[in-house]
Amino acid sequence: MTRVRALEWDHTALLLLDQRLLPGRVAWVRCSTPEEVASAIGSLVVRGAPAIGVAAAYGMVTGARLDAEDVALEAAARRLISARPTAVNLAWAVERVLEAMRTVPPSRRAEVGLLEAKRIQDEDERACIDMARHGADLVSGDEPVEVLTHCNAGALATAGIGTALGVVRELAVRGRLARLWACEARPVLQGARLTAWEAAQDGLPLTLVSDSAAASVLASGRLRAVFVGADRIAADGSTANKIGTYPLAVLAQRHAVPFHVVAPTSTVDLGVPDGTGIPVEERSPDEVRRLQGVLVAPQGTTVFNPAFDVTPPELIAAIVTERGIARPPFGDALVRLLESGQ
Amino acid sequence: MTRVRALEWDHTALLLLDQRLLPGRVAWVRCSTPEEVASAIGSLVVRGAPAIGVAAAYGMVTGARLDAEDVALEAAARRLISARPTAVNLAWAVERVLEAMRTVPPSRRAEVGLLEAKRIQDEDERACIDMARHGADLVSGDEPVEVLTHCNAGALATAGIGTALGVVRELAVRGRLARLWACEARPVLQGARLTAWEAAQDGLPLTLVSDSAAASVLASGRLRAVFVGADRIAADGSTANKIGTYPLAVLAQRHAVPFHVVAPTSTVDLGVPDGTGIPVEERSPDEVRRLQGVLVAPQGTTVFNPAFDVTPPELIAAIVTERGIARPPFGDALVRLLESGQ
Repeated sequence: MTRVRALEWDHTALLLLDQRLLPGRVAWVRCSTPEEVASAIGSLVVRGAPAIGVAAAYGMVTGARLDAEDVALEAAARRLISARPTAVNLAWAVERVLEAMRTVPPSRRAEVGLLEAKRIQDEDERACIDMARHGADLVSGDEPVEVLTHCNAGALATAGIGTALGVVRELAVRGRLARLWACEARPVLQGARLTAWEAAQDGLPLTLVSDSAAASVLASGRLRAVFVGADRIAADGSTANKIGTYPLAVLAQRHAVPFHVVAPTSTVDLGVPDGTGIPVEERSPDEVRRLQGVLVAPQGTTVFNPAFDVTPPELIAAIVTERGIARPPFGDALVRLLESGQ
Repeated sequence: MTRVRALEWDHTALLLLDQRLLPGRVAWVRCSTPEEVASAIGSLVVRGAPAIGVAAAYGMVTGARLDAEDVALEAAARRLISARPTAVNLAWAVERVLEAMRTVPPSRRAEVGLLEAKRIQDEDERACIDMARHGADLVSGDEPVEVLTHCNAGALATAGIGTALGVVRELAVRGRLARLWACEARPVLQGARLTAWEAAQDGLPLTLVSDSAAASVLASGRLRAVFVGADRIAADGSTANKIGTYPLAVLAQRHAVPFHVVAPTSTVDLGVPDGTGIPVEERSPDEVRRLQGVLVAPQGTTVFNPAFDVTPPELIAAIVTERGIARPPFGDALVRLLESGQ
């Protein structure tokens, strides 16, 4: 259902599509150590909560191939988890592989870890398909509709067809997609660089807007729904996602456009009761001061550059997971979905 | 009160600071014909509603120096007015100079037009000072405060200290400015390139954010007020301003931060009853697809690029003009302010 892939295990190393170079160049980065994988995650070679979870799982495998003793594996896990603070899938995937490895002696840990990492990848691919189906079902009727997304919650952000973009792809398959509107997602422009590129690869009709112009599109009345991904979902449904998600949700509510979050259950963190408990990564000022290397503000300008914001549950119409849809109030609904998988 | 100037009449021609090159380079463009001035306005050498009004007024003078007959002057006026559709100051200034010229024979029109253009420039400079005073009075108390602005409504957008940035400068003079937060204002980045540069020239403490991050700053509770400029204000107070103003106003209301529009009375267009009557300029897709010349989206990506949006009056706490402050309901208040100047 898509020609786009973000990562691939290649016998002894993890291959990552270098998303920093898109759309200009398609090139792959080869990572053979946990440090190389962590550094690739930190520098946005690979991004998107599910994709960095899968990448980090393979990062643990590269570690076990070098040194499978407990001390080394624990150091690798710490390094990978610290690569980015907001997405909870990262720690979830690393700990899952670490646990699987611990059930066997060091000599078998690379092999067992690889199986577990592949399982995580397969599950994510399958989860994308299920989320796509559930999400597309939210759009009633049978006429083609226009929807909006933010940042990139697509194949490049997962091991499959994407979370929010998976829903969009499913709408296209069902003949229900008239147009996908995509915000460019400053400062790193994942919407312009990645979502527009994915749409071009797969022939989806897309219109790109600057983040500020999304409000005018919402006000125009042409949108049927907004679909976004998530980096961490708190127990009450508060959703951390790419900076700019929260203002979109506020505007969507004002213009009565349903705002849907699409994410695998691995993104839900019941250990965090609400949005205040989610750590929001602040990234380099140069992401704002420069654009693709070009200085766009006076050197030395002070910058505030949070990578994420938190959308409160009252602005979210539905949280779409691979196990079904959670509706407000999200607290009980999320617990029920998580328990249904055990 | 500022070291920054956007334009200057130089004996026989209009000098415009080339704002497309800031902050990297300070260079001036010399315009000796209405066509050169109109083209400079269209390509954003000079921008900002009051500044393009003043520039167009001088554009009429360059025209009268070449050919002061009615037919030529009317053609010059049409060309200048058509340079950009949204700002109403443009037509207002051009027509004012044209009217002044018509009171005298062709041989004296360049001279009379120059006097009128200088008068418009002087009035704008004076209006900025009065707006600054009225706007700063809106911020009660005596402790330093943090405020937010969008795009560039500064010295570079006017013939004086600016509209919204004039208020900020006055707050600084009064010892009331703790910090100015500035949105970068994609796609053309007037916030990053121009407002940050102006602040650096005049030593104002500034923090730059991507447009999407402004919602997080508003949600943080640290802001006392938002001050923005305007390109056209309808009779009911609906305000067309740089794309991204409307979502800021919605977020400001949600977080109970007063949202103020600062603009000279020449920006008010009583001929337009409400926001639906304001023409919104749509600019080139390449402003979004490229950034400072660098391609950031796949070539051929469809783009929607409105340069402005319209903020409805119910989101605006006050409209600050050189003649005083209009409060909701704006209809009567604006008429009273306009009449007070006659």
